[in-house]
Amino acid sequence: MFSADEAQDWAERGERVILVRRETTPDDYHGMIRSQGILTSAGGTNSHAAVVARGEGIPAVCGADAVRIDLGTRSFTANGTKVEEGDVITIDGFSGAVYVGELALEESKLEKARSGDESARSERIWRAFDRLMAHADARRRLRVRANADTPDQSRNARERGAEGIGLCRTEHMFLGDERVQAVRKMIFATTTREEQEAYAALLPLQREDFVGIFREMDGLPVTVRLLDPPLHEFLPDRVDLATRVARLDQAGQYGPELEEAKALLAKVSELAETNPMLGLRGVRLGIVKPGLYAMQVRAILEAACRVRKENGDPRVEIMIPLVATREELRQMREELQPVAREVLQQEGVELSHLEWGTMIELPRAAVTSGEIAEVADFFSFGTNDLTQTAFGFSRDDIGKFLGMYEERKLVPANPFVTIDRPGVGRLMRIASDEGRASNGALHLGICGEHGGDPASVVFCHEIGLDYVSCSPFRVETARLAAGQASVGEHESASK
Amino acid sequence: MFSADEAQDWAERGERVILVRRETTPDDYHGMIRSQGILTSAGGTNSHAAVVARGEGIPAVCGADAVRIDLGTRSFTANGTKVEEGDVITIDGFSGAVYVGELALEESKLEKARSGDESARSERIWRAFDRLMAHADARRRLRVRANADTPDQSRNARERGAEGIGLCRTEHMFLGDERVQAVRKMIFATTTREEQEAYAALLPLQREDFVGIFREMDGLPVTVRLLDPPLHEFLPDRVDLATRVARLDQAGQYGPELEEAKALLAKVSELAETNPMLGLRGVRLGIVKPGLYAMQVRAILEAACRVRKENGDPRVEIMIPLVATREELRQMREELQPVAREVLQQEGVELSHLEWGTMIELPRAAVTSGEIAEVADFFSFGTNDLTQTAFGFSRDDIGKFLGMYEERKLVPANPFVTIDRPGVGRLMRIASDEGRASNGALHLGICGEHGGDPASVVFCHEIGLDYVSCSPFRVETARLAAGQASVGEHESASK
Repeated sequence: MFSADEAQDWAERGERVILVRRETTPDDYHGMIRSQGILTSAGGTNSHAAVVARGEGIPAVCGADAVRIDLGTRSFTANGTKVEEGDVITIDGFSGAVYVGELALEESKLEKARSGDESARSERIWRAFDRLMAHADARRRLRVRANADTPDQSRNARERGAEGIGLCRTEHMFLGDERVQAVRKMIFATTTREEQEAYAALLPLQREDFVGIFREMDGLPVTVRLLDPPLHEFLPDRVDLATRVARLDQAGQYGPELEEAKALLAKVSELAETNPMLGLRGVRLGIVKPGLYAMQVRAILEAACRVRKENGDPRVEIMIPLVATREELRQMREELQPVAREVLQQEGVELSHLEWGTMIELPRAAVTSGEIAEVADFFSFGTNDLTQTAFGFSRDDIGKFLGMYEERKLVPANPFVTIDRPGVGRLMRIASDEGRASNGALHLGICGEHGGDPASVVFCHEIGLDYVSCSPFRVETARLAAGQASVGEHESASK
Repeated sequence: MFSADEAQDWAERGERVILVRRETTPDDYHGMIRSQGILTSAGGTNSHAAVVARGEGIPAVCGADAVRIDLGTRSFTANGTKVEEGDVITIDGFSGAVYVGELALEESKLEKARSGDESARSERIWRAFDRLMAHADARRRLRVRANADTPDQSRNARERGAEGIGLCRTEHMFLGDERVQAVRKMIFATTTREEQEAYAALLPLQREDFVGIFREMDGLPVTVRLLDPPLHEFLPDRVDLATRVARLDQAGQYGPELEEAKALLAKVSELAETNPMLGLRGVRLGIVKPGLYAMQVRAILEAACRVRKENGDPRVEIMIPLVATREELRQMREELQPVAREVLQQEGVELSHLEWGTMIELPRAAVTSGEIAEVADFFSFGTNDLTQTAFGFSRDDIGKFLGMYEERKLVPANPFVTIDRPGVGRLMRIASDEGRASNGALHLGICGEHGGDPASVVFCHEIGLDYVSCSPFRVETARLAAGQASVGEHESASK
């Protein structure tokens, strides 16, 4: 399928679908999670498609740049072979290979055993695996959390040994048919009243999302990141809209449809950004739209109170993204902490754990972390964005040359896969050392994709982080790497 | 006027024009330089419009967000007042005020005196100015260069006391009617031969550009930056193109025009980037299109040889932008130095000064500058981009919230105007200290807009740079600030 909507339709008819796109956006999520596999021609290991696929455990091949998609004929070609919609292909997410036709698949014995299958649990491979993991867990100093955005992902993460959620993204809580009207109303609001109406519509829905997550992670910390992406990610594509307006206009179809499309285009154009990665997003949204983060904090706290009243133990950490200055975090806390206190008072509830912190994902934040730590309970390294800004590499755009860069050794390794020690790593070390020096109680973690990469986990151990957080499907890899890091340190010390 | 083409037309008819745009791009240059003033509704003090206007000495008001431009009716409104094309307005680039109607302008006595007017030179204000500058020059340790891209700007810079060019941008050498066909051919080339043909067409034109600059700056260093911006800046806008294709298609106008527009749209879409600031630009272009920088180096060296043969003394510094790793610079030098040597041998010429260096404009380059300095003769701090990447601020997009940020003191000051000492400044200090430690012969300068900001000049003095480089019109300000920095240092040392 070449669109998320079609993937959803086919999947709901019981078909097994591989979604093929140039790239994916948060708008495609509903089609992605219903697909057996995802194939993109642009992007790479850290594109939206790759991150979602990893989080959901969906096989994916991303940035297959030999693939040319022709939406007109609903087909794609690669190296002279043409594949049409409905043809069967097989993809291998480990090797990046794409095969025409159906290849036999083999079931994983470990997955079977983990899901409780008794006969699989008696297999040698499972017993060896289980013993190895127990050993790693006994030795490791790093805790391992997972990046999980939904109750299902949280459950999966916990089954794999996650000791909390290090990153609960809230973007998806602004998507879906039910919510899109309220989100647009929020974005286009010209009065405080319109904005408040939008928040009032979103609040109860988001509260339910959080209740599900806190129940699954009972007794374990959950770091919720307040809304991060630029708002136009929640709106239609500008080129598509301009094309539609031009067609309606040229065809002489004057009327409400054209007027509505024109108005939407004008607003989308007003919000359009030259470099959205470096634009109005993260804490900047929280500052420009003060009701937004307040609504999210209220939803989180109301959910935590509900779970607490069920005798649960929700352990809440609220994370403010993309902070560059101490003052941003201080002012946001000043606005948001009273909202949290008010909910707790109204509900008559006390929580065992409620912390406020930030991501360290901008070089400016890394080198001024001593100041920022004065107003933070925790730091979480957002190494995806820190790598993007340190190198000046947009992960959406470097697919065109990163392959050549790796081949010619122009970069030490793919810095989105393994932490670049001399550059990004040095910034992390500065932030970690100076953050701790300024605030001895500071907790430190990492929630970028690197949290599941073994070499990067070793580095996180070396600079003394408290935990790594990674995709649920990589939790076991991270536990193992954390154990190896401790063992390796011990061995080199005893030499 | 609301477009660069119209501004050019009106100006050529002898009208005095103020160009009014949402923002400007390199494509608008021809209209901008023919305008008496520039007014933009988006962007800010470091937008394209502001940088060009400052370099050309054109009064400008940038990022006047109360201004709503309606291209349909050729008018704009601001705070309830409507101004139509052809109406007279006056703008004040110092205060940012825009007036309806024509205000009386007063000529600057200093400018008159500088241009050689004898009676103006006998005025008290000129004599005081002259004495003050002589004092500053005698005391300052920092040299002052200018950012100049053309012979005219070079002459202006020299008249104001510039001691060289710290940044000669080469973007404009890829623009203009004569060159656009060759540039498109280069961008779309599918064979090496097509690419070489494009370079062959561009080479003689660019050589002449450099000859003019080297003549003006005889005996003084000229730092030429190889091509930096992403290639799609040289192509039409994607939304405009998509609109055109949709209109032609809907109107049933099948034929070569539609086909051509479609083909262009396909290519522009292929080159489109989500975050062009962090995409295929700078040294990455040089690596992906190896003939491009080679052509530029050949044009520079052939021009230098010509001027040398006229008994001039061209002092050439070739600067490779956006380097993030040592290996990028090392491999580029390995490719380009043989090209330079070949030209010098063919021409039988020796130059008194030929150096190779890089900009430090990415945080990753700053913290690994010890490695990079091993293969560099000089560093020039590109503090515009370094500020963008350190803060994660796109200068094209932050106009929407930077005002509020300054008001609420969420940033220490506008970091694009004055160097942010704790963040960007710290990165510069690391790069400067570690670069020098690794290569004692390294020259250090700054070529970002901060080079003309007095507070930033003082900081550059403190961290021991060799020179600052700024817009020609700010050279005197920089000389004065550099003198004050030395005096201030001396005074605080003698206390």
